[in-house]
Amino acid sequence: MVVGAGFAGLAAARTLAKAGALVTLVDHNPYSTFQPLLYQVATAGMSMSDVSYPVRTYAAKWPNVRARRGALSTVLPEKRRVELGDGSTLDYDFLVLATGVTTNWYDVPGAPENAQPLYSLNDAAALRRRLQHCLEEAVAGRRDSVHVVVVGGGSTGVEIAGTLAELRRRTLPLTHPEIRPDQTSVTLVERFDFVLSPYKPRLRNAAAAALRKRGVRLRLGATVASVEPDAVGIVDGTHVPSDVTVWALGVTAPAYVAEWGLPQTKGGRIRVTEALNVPKHPEIFVAGDLAGPPEQLPQLAQPAIQMGEHVGKQILAAAQGLPLRPFSYRDPGIMATVGRAEAVLQLSNGLTMRGWPAWLVWIFIHVAYLLGGRNRITVLVNFFWRYAGPRHAATSVSQ
Amino acid sequence: MVVGAGFAGLAAARTLAKAGALVTLVDHNPYSTFQPLLYQVATAGMSMSDVSYPVRTYAAKWPNVRARRGALSTVLPEKRRVELGDGSTLDYDFLVLATGVTTNWYDVPGAPENAQPLYSLNDAAALRRRLQHCLEEAVAGRRDSVHVVVVGGGSTGVEIAGTLAELRRRTLPLTHPEIRPDQTSVTLVERFDFVLSPYKPRLRNAAAAALRKRGVRLRLGATVASVEPDAVGIVDGTHVPSDVTVWALGVTAPAYVAEWGLPQTKGGRIRVTEALNVPKHPEIFVAGDLAGPPEQLPQLAQPAIQMGEHVGKQILAAAQGLPLRPFSYRDPGIMATVGRAEAVLQLSNGLTMRGWPAWLVWIFIHVAYLLGGRNRITVLVNFFWRYAGPRHAATSVSQ
Repeated sequence: MVVGAGFAGLAAARTLAKAGALVTLVDHNPYSTFQPLLYQVATAGMSMSDVSYPVRTYAAKWPNVRARRGALSTVLPEKRRVELGDGSTLDYDFLVLATGVTTNWYDVPGAPENAQPLYSLNDAAALRRRLQHCLEEAVAGRRDSVHVVVVGGGSTGVEIAGTLAELRRRTLPLTHPEIRPDQTSVTLVERFDFVLSPYKPRLRNAAAAALRKRGVRLRLGATVASVEPDAVGIVDGTHVPSDVTVWALGVTAPAYVAEWGLPQTKGGRIRVTEALNVPKHPEIFVAGDLAGPPEQLPQLAQPAIQMGEHVGKQILAAAQGLPLRPFSYRDPGIMATVGRAEAVLQLSNGLTMRGWPAWLVWIFIHVAYLLGGRNRITVLVNFFWRYAGPRHAATSVSQ
Repeated sequence: MVVGAGFAGLAAARTLAKAGALVTLVDHNPYSTFQPLLYQVATAGMSMSDVSYPVRTYAAKWPNVRARRGALSTVLPEKRRVELGDGSTLDYDFLVLATGVTTNWYDVPGAPENAQPLYSLNDAAALRRRLQHCLEEAVAGRRDSVHVVVVGGGSTGVEIAGTLAELRRRTLPLTHPEIRPDQTSVTLVERFDFVLSPYKPRLRNAAAAALRKRGVRLRLGATVASVEPDAVGIVDGTHVPSDVTVWALGVTAPAYVAEWGLPQTKGGRIRVTEALNVPKHPEIFVAGDLAGPPEQLPQLAQPAIQMGEHVGKQILAAAQGLPLRPFSYRDPGIMATVGRAEAVLQLSNGLTMRGWPAWLVWIFIHVAYLLGGRNRITVLVNFFWRYAGPRHAATSVSQ
């Protein structure tokens, strides 16, 4: 049984399904989310259906895969059983836990109440509604400003800040002509002195320059102390006015994971062996963001996919009584986009690329990894429309 | 000022905008809905963004059009002022009321509580969620059946019943293999002895045959007496088991229209002159479903668009002190689709067409009238995918 239909869970289910194993794929949503493009949903460039794919449609590709909608309530390792939120129970021979993680507020006062996370599809839709609502209030004269502060200069923070800044410069004057430019701003707050810390200094600087060129105000070396309804407080005592605060900082395991009685490690993730299973319950495997292997991995799509495939193969081996093999991550490199025709790319062999060539590679990779031919076509149409279509056409509304 | 961004409101705004008039376009949603394709959203063939278009993107096409999000709270004709739900007021020289209508429950007991309407985008999304929820309950064993009853054999009823029956036959065995065919059904209840009453008998019969061929159970000559949580009661005392009841019967003006102090006519619609304005307040025009002109018109997209254009032209004339002209409807004909490669089409000159040629015309017309190039492309992709793509790929999830 595979719980969680994200990158890791789908990779595990696919690996098992291809080998003919009976798989039950459980998720609390009826869809799988393509998280790397959530920032496009939040900025109204894509619709929710563009970056999501029905779990049942995925499962329907194999006769030996069953989908089941339900929230994992608890794991009973001794009984080899899971309990779902609706009270029903499912028994397993092998279990893959790939439920992902949740927003880490890092105990910053006011953050859970006043900041918007960007980890799930619902987060992205809520952020979009919040932005639209504030803009409408400004049009109606019930709000003076729509200042956006993005907290966190990792790839999520850079991508959403760059895209929002482009919307502010290019689209807002056409769609909301009632709002003056000085009523809006996009600020990126980052505790390091640079953005995109996993990248080489040359790419970090290129990304920062590209953000500044788009009008993003960079507050580097600034650690957030608090989030208030109308401002973000910095540890140096200053305040950045903020009507919408986007929380792009990091993730942690949800608190209820502790109730499963499995060993945990940094960030609440489940401590697993080199083979990605739980020492005392070798039939339980963990993959994706929720997994805490001996060697920490970046919480990205690639490690999740590779972990999912590895876990699927280990279960097939274990079922045949064969020994498990340790997981090793083949790092293909990392990439982030800043906006129209601007991205940074760093391969694991040290090769770097930036500007529009990197952006084209970024689009190609992201579209290629999308689930479903229809999603690929519509997302390409959306990219074309957003970046080459009429200027006023850069917004999508699907609630 | 134009209130309502449906077919009528957009046509009025476009006519006025092209002539250089200052237009404020008000709607309580941030988007305009392409209602003829709502049944596709309800049956997960299209996403909400495919059939909606941002009002601000529409307004951004003209420098003299301003968009304003807000629900019309009341009209103060003496002050030439409207009040919005948020308490703000807007003054007008000329007013176009094109806010549309709402579900007519025809005082059938239990209908508002137990049936799902299909008039707005939110209705369509709610119906889709309800269907998905019931199917998941059936998979989990917490529900024995998912019987769907569609009340009303007009074009909306025929379209949704035909599409649901195709989903049941073709897609459900792949996506929900746990559910047996005898656990599901699609029934269409209609008080006349035929469906599609505005059509010639030959087309009515062809549509009924096409529905039966898809497995739709037809209950013709059956007037609904009540809607219960698990059944639809017929006046002859029989009951049709129903887990999901779709209300495709008709529309009426919302009750609050009475508070505007304007004359009303059949169905609560606002009584207007032949020129489509209010007798005592000639500066107030009404277009679309809300208009009650001397000669009653079908509540379809075509009359709404033509009324909107007419109203726009009359306002331009009135502003120049020219006399108003009566509205006359140029009927291009009517069409309805039953499912894959099956539609009926009846031109006003008596020419009829059915089968796949009519279906291709139906697709062409609907795609041509969609707002925005992106919507047209993605809807074509969706049609292709639903009807010619892999069988398991027939569902879209955008919540």
